[in-house]
Amino acid sequence: MAYFRIEYFSNALRRTVEFEMMIPNDRSDGVPWEKNNSSDHPMKTLFLLHGYTGKAGNWVPPGIAEKYNFAIVMPNAENSFYLNGDATGRQYQTMVGEELVDYVRHTFRLALTPDDTFIAGLSMGGFGALHTGLAYPDRFGKIAALSSALIVHELKDIHPGGGNAVANYEYYRECFGDLSTAAERDVNPEVLAVRLKKSGRKLPDIFMACGTEDFLIENNRAMHRFLEEHNIPHEYLEGKGIHDMVFWQEYIVKAAEWMFA
Amino acid sequence: MAYFRIEYFSNALRRTVEFEMMIPNDRSDGVPWEKNNSSDHPMKTLFLLHGYTGKAGNWVPPGIAEKYNFAIVMPNAENSFYLNGDATGRQYQTMVGEELVDYVRHTFRLALTPDDTFIAGLSMGGFGALHTGLAYPDRFGKIAALSSALIVHELKDIHPGGGNAVANYEYYRECFGDLSTAAERDVNPEVLAVRLKKSGRKLPDIFMACGTEDFLIENNRAMHRFLEEHNIPHEYLEGKGIHDMVFWQEYIVKAAEWMFA
Amino acid sequence: MAYFRIEYFSNALRRTVEFEMMIPNDRSDGVPWEKNNSSDHPMKTLFLLHGYTGKAGNWVPPGIAEKYNFAIVMPNAENSFYLNGDATGRQYQTMVGEELVDYVRHTFRLALTPDDTFIAGLSMGGFGALHTGLAYPDRFGKIAALSSALIVHELKDIHPGGGNAVANYEYYRECFGDLSTAAERDVNPEVLAVRLKKSGRKLPDIFMACGTEDFLIENNRAMHRFLEEHNIPHEYLEGKGIHDMVFWQEYIVKAAEWMFA
Amino acid sequence: MAYFRIEYFSNALRRTVEFEMMIPNDRSDGVPWEKNNSSDHPMKTLFLLHGYTGKAGNWVPPGIAEKYNFAIVMPNAENSFYLNGDATGRQYQTMVGEELVDYVRHTFRLALTPDDTFIAGLSMGGFGALHTGLAYPDRFGKIAALSSALIVHELKDIHPGGGNAVANYEYYRECFGDLSTAAERDVNPEVLAVRLKKSGRKLPDIFMACGTEDFLIENNRAMHRFLEEHNIPHEYLEGKGIHDMVFWQEYIVKAAEWMFA
Repeated sequence: MAYFRIEYFSNALRRTVEFEMMIPNDRSDGVPWEKNNSSDHPMKTLFLLHGYTGKAGNWVPPGIAEKYNFAIVMPNAENSFYLNGDATGRQYQTMVGEELVDYVRHTFRLALTPDDTFIAGLSMGGFGALHTGLAYPDRFGKIAALSSALIVHELKDIHPGGGNAVANYEYYRECFGDLSTAAERDVNPEVLAVRLKKSGRKLPDIFMACGTEDFLIENNRAMHRFLEEHNIPHEYLEGKGIHDMVFWQEYIVKAAEWMFA
Repeated sequence: MAYFRIEYFSNALRRTVEFEMMIPNDRSDGVPWEKNNSSDHPMKTLFLLHGYTGKAGNWVPPGIAEKYNFAIVMPNAENSFYLNGDATGRQYQTMVGEELVDYVRHTFRLALTPDDTFIAGLSMGGFGALHTGLAYPDRFGKIAALSSALIVHELKDIHPGGGNAVANYEYYRECFGDLSTAAERDVNPEVLAVRLKKSGRKLPDIFMACGTEDFLIENNRAMHRFLEEHNIPHEYLEGKGIHDMVFWQEYIVKAAEWMFA
Repeated sequence: MAYFRIEYFSNALRRTVEFEMMIPNDRSDGVPWEKNNSSDHPMKTLFLLHGYTGKAGNWVPPGIAEKYNFAIVMPNAENSFYLNGDATGRQYQTMVGEELVDYVRHTFRLALTPDDTFIAGLSMGGFGALHTGLAYPDRFGKIAALSSALIVHELKDIHPGGGNAVANYEYYRECFGDLSTAAERDVNPEVLAVRLKKSGRKLPDIFMACGTEDFLIENNRAMHRFLEEHNIPHEYLEGKGIHDMVFWQEYIVKAAEWMFA
Repeated sequence: MAYFRIEYFSNALRRTVEFEMMIPNDRSDGVPWEKNNSSDHPMKTLFLLHGYTGKAGNWVPPGIAEKYNFAIVMPNAENSFYLNGDATGRQYQTMVGEELVDYVRHTFRLALTPDDTFIAGLSMGGFGALHTGLAYPDRFGKIAALSSALIVHELKDIHPGGGNAVANYEYYRECFGDLSTAAERDVNPEVLAVRLKKSGRKLPDIFMACGTEDFLIENNRAMHRFLEEHNIPHEYLEGKGIHDMVFWQEYIVKAAEWMFA
């Protein structure tokens, strides 16, 4: 499994940033490269999004890239919720969903189409996978969102001087913009999903999973109901577990099977 | 010259971050380590701050660390102006000036006192060196600031919906807080310098340099005059040059001589 | 868990090399650093040796460094068997057992004594842990060797033009020197152990483990018998398992408990 | 300038190795990627070889990759002289000249033909560029060799127990094989050049340069005369200078102009 640490100048963030990649293209099994990646059958690509406090490479799923023969791209989006803020250089959505997808496609001989380009993440990265995937349905064909931090409906209750256990008002304001209207704006994946549905365009396929003891379980159930109410097809799994690596190591394997098998 | 790339969890930024170091402790000249770094005479440490759009390691000064036998610590502060913002996890000043200094001192057998711990930078990092050094005079004994982005007096003219050639209102607001009062608050190095002076505490020694064709020359001259008016000792150099690497490669050598010779 | 990637010039290998470290010194649990690492109670250090075809960082044991509060140093010794060859710059034993131990002690505020400095490895690295630990009993207080490639007695049967399933005659010759006499020379950990025993000096404590289905099980049993015959105390464990990560992930935890609990 | 640090499993070296790349594909000048790299006009690639004691990335030529729009691939070949030794896993020539060229072409959307794939190096890497380029004329269209360590004719005078100022007999033996016959075998670039010439196949274009005060000047002059005597076209430059970075920084620019202008 080849491992890449890459620095490039991001126009979206207005500075040099790093991301990481894994490509199962250094096989010693004698299978010729062309079997696993050719211009006719290019290797699929999974954009894998870290959670709050995390970074690229701190969550490497076990063995799935070799098993299903796909590359993993791991951006660093800091604690941004993968959203575009108002400030110059705070364009994390653009960085992950446009710039980096294009950069990887231009740089590497990998998949070029949404049929072969998927996005997944956990916690804040689960939110990011849903939001980024629905914002760029022409780039991403499938979304897998684990234990997603679908907190956008709670933001209206966070006021100047306040916050919640995770962060303060200013933090959420920088990520989501005006908190009182966030749930009605494009920072809410539901808004993107409904608009796509109404437009008649193809939505990415959606896979969601959450642990039944996860503190975010009700948020995930609410999203599940929302998608059902709007007749938006999706796979939804619950299983015993909390908001931790044990759950994610188990369910990323299920997600990979759903995406690649 | 040994080179270190280090990831650690920053409580100030609420996420795993990277910084880089250079330590001239892999000499092949037969000089025993103890000559260059011992508990009696620990190796001095220079915190070196990058500019806007830059990152750790993209500006490695030529040969000075070996010549004067000091370690270089290179934080990544993104485009933050090395300041604490209001949002959770936006504590760049605390990260560089407190957390990282302490982390390096706890982790490495290097200097422990302000007599042996210096800070330098260019452009936004020149501002950062002045501001951070004056905010933590108990940690930093000397400041070297090249072509410093001393723009704090211009901020009151940036209004919502506006900006300047570099960035928009929201960007400056996230870095500096309320722009109309920024010049009177602690984000202005002058405020810190005057308070220190009045308190009778020792200020760090200060070295400033700017190119005569630099677009920031008048900002640097204004700071120079301010320090003179307040009888704050400092070295101030001007030389032919613009806001570029040619000037910095020349003047970091002068700064190193001033700091270490 | 802080992660370090370090380049330094190795006099033993006559070139710039890399190694990696993990130090659990970026805790967010509020426990002050001094509780976990102070000059009175410095943090212990484990040198962790990779196997044939491996490299630093490709085997990171799960959670033990945080649990028992020790640093991990991971050298890159290529496919050298951690031995000094005859050629200039082929001093892998010296690099790991002398140079790197000293470099880490000089550079980091970590343990300085063999009571706090241990060595462990798997497969070729298990051989390396036994050999390096027994070669430097003044540096290493404990040895943990998993599924060790204790192949030195088989080398006399490898002749020019020949080899075995792993490598050819020239490879083994470059690692071990004259193959016909290797078992009687210092490249054999048994030779080092017996000499230490006879000298009356303290041997490092020894922990060995091997899977019962491992192709190296008889080699490990032979070493176990040898140590018993020479009244050299050691812990020896066998357990169901083959020569793979499943066994190592389980037994490195047992080894850590034996070393640090 | 994007920077890549890449680990992959090398079948030639039988272990995971690292190499580095620079690709000028993160431009902020508004020029569309397709202008600089397209399937019709793919970006050219330069394989850049380090010297004895060096490694990938410790010699980054100034500004030429952006200026002429080419990618740089920097292998790590340790102190191997870029040759295949007899031992298993000592296939440095194969690693650089076959495996890595193919790996880069398979992985990155860059040049696929010898018309667009060049090789350059300094000192031991100058030898490597000449040797590897002449060994693989179907892969490399141009060779630039600076201050090349063309020492193969001196090897016959190094005997067991002996050596020279750089290394001992065993070291040269592991790199070059039997030293008494090295000059007549394929480890001598002259042998490769003459064979290619006689076969009527196209040789790579050759650029050589050496400082007049370099201790290797006579070795380079001898190679120059040899090529002249065999009517092998090549560019040969001498200039004031010794065996140091000052000369290489100046002449890599001349080499780049010769290769890319």
